[in-house]
Amino acid sequence: MGFSIDGVEGLPEIAKGADLAAIIVGATSLEEGDILVITSKIVSKAEGRVVAAADREQAITDETVRVVATREYEGGVTRIVENRQGIIGAAAGVDASNAPDGTVLLLPIDPDASARALATGIRALTGISIGVILSDTLGRPWRDGQTDIAIGAAGVHVFDDLRGATDAAGKPLAVTMPCVADEIAGAAELVKGKSAGVPVAVVRGLGRYVGELDLPGARSIQRPPERDLFRVGADEAYDNGYRDGFDEAQNEGPLRRDL
Amino acid sequence: MGFSIDGVEGLPEIAKGADLAAIIVGATSLEEGDILVITSKIVSKAEGRVVAAADREQAITDETVRVVATREYEGGVTRIVENRQGIIGAAAGVDASNAPDGTVLLLPIDPDASARALATGIRALTGISIGVILSDTLGRPWRDGQTDIAIGAAGVHVFDDLRGATDAAGKPLAVTMPCVADEIAGAAELVKGKSAGVPVAVVRGLGRYVGELDLPGARSIQRPPERDLFRVGADEAYDNGYRDGFDEAQNEGPLRRDL
Repeated sequence: MGFSIDGVEGLPEIAKGADLAAIIVGATSLEEGDILVITSKIVSKAEGRVVAAADREQAITDETVRVVATREYEGGVTRIVENRQGIIGAAAGVDASNAPDGTVLLLPIDPDASARALATGIRALTGISIGVILSDTLGRPWRDGQTDIAIGAAGVHVFDDLRGATDAAGKPLAVTMPCVADEIAGAAELVKGKSAGVPVAVVRGLGRYVGELDLPGARSIQRPPERDLFRVGADEAYDNGYRDGFDEAQNEGPLRRDL
Repeated sequence: MGFSIDGVEGLPEIAKGADLAAIIVGATSLEEGDILVITSKIVSKAEGRVVAAADREQAITDETVRVVATREYEGGVTRIVENRQGIIGAAAGVDASNAPDGTVLLLPIDPDASARALATGIRALTGISIGVILSDTLGRPWRDGQTDIAIGAAGVHVFDDLRGATDAAGKPLAVTMPCVADEIAGAAELVKGKSAGVPVAVVRGLGRYVGELDLPGARSIQRPPERDLFRVGADEAYDNGYRDGFDEAQNEGPLRRDL
């Protein structure tokens, strides 16, 4: 029981309108059950999700649904936000790296829909069942560095739902639900890298996770804020509480706000 | 540029005092540059980090350095804590799954030291350079499900430090520092699984991340609370702020507490 991951070499620079499904099929020899991990940046390029670098801050604002936390550093402010894709990360995924000079790339408008279109196209061109994961690189609370995660998925189970299954000793794995889509996206980063210019990797040997095109996408991984113990930053939550407590003591409350 | 991951089959049940290095070497044919991902549970078993299930709550308290957040559910309270290993997670890593009946397993006291001892032993037995990652399964903010991460590491670079490197277009990757140890641990989960009873995986093809035994371990991945925007849960931070604001308005303050 093992698997392999190989980067797809020799892909051309992707321009707006590029037929990514055809380009990827032409550059690979896919097998039934393969999972393609595609860096979301080339999907953004194909979809023309590019704006002038000068408009970066406005683009972040436009992509933001909810500000989660902010941090000042010398030279600016990092905004951790929930973006329109529902993903929580720095700068709403707006990023200059691997973007054309003088521009920044926005995430695809609907990464699950983009993944589904690619999976549909690749399945049609090859006649075999493959899965598609769109990946992006994100930081995380509590741990330094970044990992690639799945921001879009189609034709692949994003969770290995073991709730109700048992461990090797027969004991139930009550709450265990590994997010295999994120683990696969992170694994693919190890061959794609950031500087190698290898935006696509083929994962072979995990066909058990490949399924119908209408399986829940990566959006189903995102935890709704009302279930999230870390839905806003500690400083933002403290400041909200301080303001409400102050007002309450002055008999203008109770004003406990939703976080 | 690719790699493969294979689970190690046929390992015996691990008892206290087991010579894990010898057992793993006996069950594998390792090559220079391999990275072994070892489920921390079998290290806990070898180190005798087992307590009676009845003592679970006390064990969690004993392992806890700092309570980060709590969540009540029908039947109990989940405690998200920073444990003595510096890892933030539910129940301080105290877990009954794959533990002997009537017991729960604690994490190794010092996972980096355990990893270093294993890497040292395996290098001595085989005469080749390999890396060792100890993995555990943790949930995360913002996204449902769990992924395996590195809680211990030796002889392997935990970060692929690209700060100062450039992207394919020659632009600097200012803050990019992929946490390859977490990505490798997550990838290995895909073959080890939770129920398969395969606690060790061999990663082949990532020898570029293997290095000296004195490289920084997994502890270096952990972000200190003072740099962490999510160092406590939103409700806890709000309540701290509310209390302080209330006291302040009653001229008993300022009492702004450290979070």
